[in-house]
This record gives sequence, C-alpha cells and structure tokens, in this order.
Amino acid sequence: MNCNTPTDIVFSFTGFATRAGRTGEHTDGFGIAFFEGSGVRLFVDHQAALDSPVAELVKNYPIKSCNVIAHIRKATQGPVMLANCHPFQRELWGSYWVFAHNGNLVDFQPEQRDRYLPVGTTDSERAFCFLLNELRRRFPQRPALPELTTALREITPGIARHGTFNYMLSDGTALFAHCSTALSYIVRQYPFATAELRDEDMKVDFSAVTTPKDRVAVIVTEPLTTNETWTAFAPGELKVFVEGEPQAM
Amino acid sequence: MNCNTPTDIVFSFTGFATRAGRTGEHTDGFGIAFFEGSGVRLFVDHQAALDSPVAELVKNYPIKSCNVIAHIRKATQGPVMLANCHPFQRELWGSYWVFAHNGNLVDFQPEQRDRYLPVGTTDSERAFCFLLNELRRRFPQRPALPELTTALREITPGIARHGTFNYMLSDGTALFAHCSTALSYIVRQYPFATAELRDEDMKVDFSAVTTPKDRVAVIVTEPLTTNETWTAFAPGELKVFVEGEPQAM
Repeated sequence: MNCNTPTDIVFSFTGFATRAGRTGEHTDGFGIAFFEGSGVRLFVDHQAALDSPVAELVKNYPIKSCNVIAHIRKATQGPVMLANCHPFQRELWGSYWVFAHNGNLVDFQPEQRDRYLPVGTTDSERAFCFLLNELRRRFPQRPALPELTTALREITPGIARHGTFNYMLSDGTALFAHCSTALSYIVRQYPFATAELRDEDMKVDFSAVTTPKDRVAVIVTEPLTTNETWTAFAPGELKVFVEGEPQAM
Repeated sequence: MNCNTPTDIVFSFTGFATRAGRTGEHTDGFGIAFFEGSGVRLFVDHQAALDSPVAELVKNYPIKSCNVIAHIRKATQGPVMLANCHPFQRELWGSYWVFAHNGNLVDFQPEQRDRYLPVGTTDSERAFCFLLNELRRRFPQRPALPELTTALREITPGIARHGTFNYMLSDGTALFAHCSTALSYIVRQYPFATAELRDEDMKVDFSAVTTPKDRVAVIVTEPLTTNETWTAFAPGELKVFVEGEPQAM
C-alpha cells in the first residue's frame, strides 16, 4: 500500500491474511512492515497469518502509514523459520529499505559483495541483498527517483530470468513494484465507494473514513476485492508509486 | 536476557515496563528484540511501554528466546518518534546485530564511514553505527569471541568519554553489556527460587517453570527484584554473556 495520507491497512490485511490457510496455501510465516516517518515497524512470525497472535495485533491495532508491505509465505527455498520470513529490511543511504518477494528463483547464487549479506537461506533475501549491493555500487548517495527507477529496471531482469520475481520494495517515500507473472493495482480516490473483500464476508465504505484529498494505491498479486476494477501489470513491468499514484516514468 | 534454553521474558518485562510511567519516567517509546535462531523479532513503539498495545502483546504472548534486549526510552537527544526508538538493528557479517543504549552522549558526532549510517537522530544510533563501522573495518569476517570482545573494549571508551554509555549489544549468540554508570546482573540457575518484582506486586516460582539445566542471565540498569542478589558492574566494565553465563575474558 502506498498513500498520500497515513492510512490503516486493517481492511486489506484481513482479506490478505485469509489466504494464509483458508482461501490460499501461504501458511509458512507472514510479515508486515509499516513505515512511520523514517522509522519502520516490522512484524514477522513463522506462524501463518491466520493463526498468529502478531497478525491478530495488526488486525486490531490500526497502525496508520503511507507505505506498507505485507507478505504471506509459501516456502519454496529455505525452511520455515523466522529468519526466512519476508519482508526483509536493511539500511541504505541512511534510510531503511523493505522488500518482499512472491515467486521462486532457481540457481540464483550471485557472488555477493560483502556490504549486504543474507542472514537467512531464501532466494528472496539473496535477491534483495543483490539489489541493494548493485544500487550502492552505482550510487554512493541516493539518486533522484527517475535515476533510481531506471537502475532498478536495469538490475531486475538479470534476477528475474532465474524464475518468478514479483516484488515490492520501499524506502518509505516511494514504493517500487515489479511484476514477473502476477501483480495488479488499484488507486482509490475521491469519490470513494464501498469495497467488498473477495476472501472474507467484509465490506467497507471508504467514503465514511476518508477525506476528498486522500489517495491510496494498493498493489497485490491477486485482486483483493470483487466489485472494483483492478489494473493488471504487464509481465516484466516495474512501476513506482508515490503518494498513492503510479508515476509516469 | 541471555540464556542457554529459550525462555520467555514475561516476568521481567512486566516489571521493566512499569518503569515506563508508573515507577519511572521512561515514557518516550519502547522496544524489545527477540532473537529466534538467526532471525529477530523487533517490536518498537513511540508510545510508553505501559500504554502500548505492542507491549501488551509482548506481555501476553510468551515468545521464547535465548537473547532478548529491551529498552524504555527517556528522550535526551532526538524527538519522540519511531525511528528514534531502541533497540536498533543492522546486519553485519551475515548476522543481525541489535543494540540499546541507556545514557546520553554529548558532542558525539563522529565522521561516519558510509557502511552503516543512522536513520534517526539519536546519539545512541550514531554510537551503534560507529561501533559497527569500526568492527567491520577491523574484521572483514566475524572474529572469534575473545577478539571481538577485545575490540569492543578498545572501541567503547572513545565513545563513553562523551557522557553516559550503558549499552547492550547482541548478535543472537552472545550478549555484550557495557557499564558506564549503572548496570547489574543476576544468573538464575538450579536450584531455582521464587523472585519478587520491585515494581509490581508479582512473584514467580522459577523452580516450577524450569529444568535443572536451565541458566538465565538478566542484565539491567536497576535490579528488577527485591529478594535476589544482583551483582553490580564496575564503571567502564564490559562483560560478555554466553548461554546464561558471564565469560571469563
């Protein structure tokens, strides 16, 4: 989720978490990261989001944030353990960066520069460290958003050719989303309507909880609602969202 | 807390959290990090531990860990915000490192090597980044524990001369504790007895919840219980704890 006003994610997370067992098979851990200014709250659990007390907290404590990345894990590489739960977090250029991956990378064993090293044993964390090492190698300081986006579009295909590489990446100011096989987004803005979850019998009337200037983008592998129009990414497409809007770059 | 068997910290955290308002003035945020294998659960909140729903979760969800670092903040430098809440976390040598500081460093503005940069605005995170940059400069790979301890004892005084620098540092295998002005520890082991909290009307009979081989070290700025004998650190002393025991090095 990427927004122009701090927004809670209780509605979307409730539908999403249901896929961790009831309407999906992503039961090997979960995680969610909320940016709050330059800080991050990162909750991870090796339990399924449907059972985890940590997920229960997230559903009941409406943390407001402009950038949230959530993940429910179906283990492909690396055992079920805390160090293998997404999102992963590192500091680059004096900011925290958060990353989550949907997919599977085969034979992706890059020689890692030693600046960012994986702690766990997933292909995903290896890919995240590789991305950060490459960005840091190209830019000693944070570049402007267009340069950063171009760099990610150059680095990503070399990883994606190893398999499926849908990912989300954020530093709390922008959210980068790359589609390898499946990714859709929606921008909710004035006039707001009612949305109905696909995975739970739950509706929310956004007009009752928003102001006319609010704008919220939600990006997800499978659309979360049944009565809204989601836009599918093209395979290989990398979009960047700022303040609830996909950027033309 | 540093132990030889995964142990929950509900009892100690309950007494500790009470100091965030009721029996102490550390109300400017709190945080707690639990190592679980090579992974870390890091909970931070800008709210006082006494009020925070996140602290409530920690009190009610008995997360078991061999290395835990908790912190309640009384802001000296840097506003009350999430990015300024301890513990701080970074990856070094492919492991997560967690750090919390009690005290205040005046005019500590080192030239930071750019490998580890602070995200928030506290003296504490600056000190943590400085420690990691120095360790990384000396050791491209993780050295053995005696070398690492010696290095920390060499680096720490240069920071501590700027003020008060009680700190805890852990990579999930060892816990390093440095005393500048106030730090005490206790090792609980067989035969276990009953402990009474100083800050809450609460007792626990550890003999009922342990096995004879369990060993738990608790290190804290002010002793948490009234009926146990705590050992005070000497000013300037840095101890390292492994599997619930202070190491002779």
